[in-house]
Amino acid sequence: MTQNIYDDPDFFTQYSQFRRSVEGLDGAPEWPSLRAMLPPLAGAAVLDLGCGFGWFSRWARQAGAASVDGIDVSERMLARARTDTSDAAIRYRRADLESADLGVACYDVVYSSLVLHYIVDLDGLLGRVRRALKPGGSFVFSAEHPLLTAPEVAAWAEGPVWPLTNYLVEGPRRMHWLVDGVVKQHRTLGTTLTLLIRNRFTLAAIEEWRPTDEQIAAHPEWTIELHRPMFVLVGCRV
Amino acid sequence: MTQNIYDDPDFFTQYSQFRRSVEGLDGAPEWPSLRAMLPPLAGAAVLDLGCGFGWFSRWARQAGAASVDGIDVSERMLARARTDTSDAAIRYRRADLESADLGVACYDVVYSSLVLHYIVDLDGLLGRVRRALKPGGSFVFSAEHPLLTAPEVAAWAEGPVWPLTNYLVEGPRRMHWLVDGVVKQHRTLGTTLTLLIRNRFTLAAIEEWRPTDEQIAAHPEWTIELHRPMFVLVGCRV
Repeated sequence: MTQNIYDDPDFFTQYSQFRRSVEGLDGAPEWPSLRAMLPPLAGAAVLDLGCGFGWFSRWARQAGAASVDGIDVSERMLARARTDTSDAAIRYRRADLESADLGVACYDVVYSSLVLHYIVDLDGLLGRVRRALKPGGSFVFSAEHPLLTAPEVAAWAEGPVWPLTNYLVEGPRRMHWLVDGVVKQHRTLGTTLTLLIRNRFTLAAIEEWRPTDEQIAAHPEWTIELHRPMFVLVGCRV
Repeated sequence: MTQNIYDDPDFFTQYSQFRRSVEGLDGAPEWPSLRAMLPPLAGAAVLDLGCGFGWFSRWARQAGAASVDGIDVSERMLARARTDTSDAAIRYRRADLESADLGVACYDVVYSSLVLHYIVDLDGLLGRVRRALKPGGSFVFSAEHPLLTAPEVAAWAEGPVWPLTNYLVEGPRRMHWLVDGVVKQHRTLGTTLTLLIRNRFTLAAIEEWRPTDEQIAAHPEWTIELHRPMFVLVGCRV
């Protein structure tokens, strides 16, 4: 089972104060790039893997989706998602993505934001996503970039430089992120893309996210982010 | 025009002593992985972009290729390639890959080893490779991994750690590599893959190369290479 750190009270309190937790999609700087990878959602059946507070699920409905299934392992996040949602076409469900039954050929679009780096059996999940998509369907996701999950201690060093180690050593990383003992699964970008290809996805867009010039002008402190990408964004089709 | 550093006498003398220059493909640790991405070559018309001393061109003929065109910008390398080759089905030609005419639908396989990180207009070259391939043809290449071309000074720091900087700042890098003033073109892995997709290649294999356990056992000093990949290997189809 995936570690359910989001139900840790201390973690949850801190995470709830993140800009993306308060403002939703517009508080996530990578959202415009991820949105651009999505197909038109009008009439689409959508699956939101790791739906959290339900921001994307509600946005998808506003963008015309016929229905949205949101799945998350965190009871606390789902409780807030249900409180914030009044739309019978959005169904939230608690499940562990390591094993959740996603159905067969029932979705036009599967979406996942910053979840896949927690998944131990990514090959298995991608196989279930592949089967859950209708022919011609799309899978669009973001994940933490492996340059962040590679080092034992992921922190800037003097320079600033990003002191990269162990990029090619895949496996779990236990780190301090808001609280101690958060476990992320490190795998190279090459491995993630290879697993997609093996599961018969056609890669359509791959972006190592960087802040735009406009975002850097508005947040000069983000200049440091040019040294290494925080996120990888991928769009693919079946 | 691409910088032609391989015709610099000092560079050429040093490069000629590299294990891969003396032993050929078997002296290149990434060769088994790259070879595994190639389709069967029996009867194939092959293009070797940046053929250097001609090691791959000759190997391709031994693997059954009907003909091989080898292109390189370096007169010195082509002179040795011609000396080392006695096979009328291998044609060497001097040309700048930034602008070389590669023909239309005339090759089954295009191969390129450690050349694309010198190319300024990669989009233009990929377009010409795309047009040069017959339907169903393959393009298989290696390039220096962008984690090596990103920093102004590409060298290990104490730890060891790989002090990454400027990964998201694309453009030329002037560095010391055997001699001063070698110019490489830094672009992210995401950009290279996006340019392939835009030029209508279907990505089939993407590997951030790591030494195998057997290679590390034979060369314990290669353990450091696990901190960051030296090469990216890509196989794609049209």
